[in-house]
Amino acid sequence: MIKKITIIGSGNVATILSKVFVNKGFSINQVFSKSKINAEILIEKLAANQQIKITDNIAEIDDTSDIYIVCVKDDAIATVVNQILFKDKLIVHTSGSVDITVFNGFNQFGVFYPLQTFSKDKDTDVANVPFCIEGNTNQTTQLLIDLASSISKKVYEINSEQRKTLHLAAVFACNFTNYMYSIAEEITTKNNINFEVLKPLIQETAKKIEFQSPKEAQTGPAKRKDQQTINKHLAMLENNPNKELYKLITDLIQK
Amino acid sequence: MIKKITIIGSGNVATILSKVFVNKGFSINQVFSKSKINAEILIEKLAANQQIKITDNIAEIDDTSDIYIVCVKDDAIATVVNQILFKDKLIVHTSGSVDITVFNGFNQFGVFYPLQTFSKDKDTDVANVPFCIEGNTNQTTQLLIDLASSISKKVYEINSEQRKTLHLAAVFACNFTNYMYSIAEEITTKNNINFEVLKPLIQETAKKIEFQSPKEAQTGPAKRKDQQTINKHLAMLENNPNKELYKLITDLIQK
Repeated sequence: MIKKITIIGSGNVATILSKVFVNKGFSINQVFSKSKINAEILIEKLAANQQIKITDNIAEIDDTSDIYIVCVKDDAIATVVNQILFKDKLIVHTSGSVDITVFNGFNQFGVFYPLQTFSKDKDTDVANVPFCIEGNTNQTTQLLIDLASSISKKVYEINSEQRKTLHLAAVFACNFTNYMYSIAEEITTKNNINFEVLKPLIQETAKKIEFQSPKEAQTGPAKRKDQQTINKHLAMLENNPNKELYKLITDLIQK
Repeated sequence: MIKKITIIGSGNVATILSKVFVNKGFSINQVFSKSKINAEILIEKLAANQQIKITDNIAEIDDTSDIYIVCVKDDAIATVVNQILFKDKLIVHTSGSVDITVFNGFNQFGVFYPLQTFSKDKDTDVANVPFCIEGNTNQTTQLLIDLASSISKKVYEINSEQRKTLHLAAVFACNFTNYMYSIAEEITTKNNINFEVLKPLIQETAKKIEFQSPKEAQTGPAKRKDQQTINKHLAMLENNPNKELYKLITDLIQK
């Protein structure tokens, strides 16, 4: 059973995981960050009744924890992992796009991927964050599922191949969706319309998929092949870099 | 003051408006629908303590109401409106994309546009639906604002030009956003991943814009110019009609 945790990193994911682990009675043994100040800021946020060691030197990461959770940026994971000298402890990363093979040479490893968009200024309800779990052995997978289940109601076993497609799907569901919002914001603001007017529509559109497949929920001029409205919209987007995008999505919806 | 209402149409908007007007103590005088059965279904849903006349003949629409609310499909509005013979009563439509000039020849007219996506099977909290109001005179505008305010907390005066851009913005914020969801659903389903895994992310992405501008909230591989991940995603989308879309949105985010 996992009791003692080392957190590697001091960003959003590191902070949110540390907080929830402390709240659930786990012991945070050590926090590594290349910036000691950021590690201190993280620890202050925990308000923990326990001594937490910090270090900005990877060689000083001690080998007494039950698990090492790597929460650094995707492109830094390999570098950090390769500098960890003991290879016999359970180590995981929290990334949607980095392969599990980044841990080659370790005995016990896996992925502990919280599929959510985190904000610095907004508290996350971790209990509702889906955790995508993968372990190098069945035993490791089970350990990680137990750990995730102690902080979240939504735990899924997802292999590396699935995780990659999930990450791609998340780009559409989150990043590209947000870009649609930002186009809507730009159009309204440019025309002296308060973007607030659109917010209930945005919320309702998201809520709809909780009880209806998005494929079935599709509405709008493209779906009903209302070429007159489509033409009006394209005319309004003249000289706008998003005109091509309007055209392309309209075509794709009609396919 | 408006007390007596005629509803023209029997679809989602007609039903939702009729319901809330009855609940707020207004009198529904008459419902027109080209299908009498649909008009009857609408009236059954109201559970009103009042006699409501129905007709499927436009010539039978009586002239005793204070307002006539046209809730038919966009491309049917002009046809229906032109068949109404009395021109001295307040008449409005509920469309985001039809011009107010469709009422040429009438004395008192306007737009009463609820900016929301309505579902047949899901109750709408009308109090939080933004109503976009336009009247042909200041007095008409004020009457319509008062009427909208009696059923919703969110009432905006929006002229025809603004309404058109708002409708365009809504296509991005609702229809195109939903299309992003459906791509995400397709990718997960094809890879034996439960689409449920993505739903918390979708909800959180929508919630974020309540306290942060979408422009500021933008994250993802495109935003951080993570070309390695972008290339991986493009490779995964080989032979997928949405590959071009991934490319285009990525380019637009980076501009």
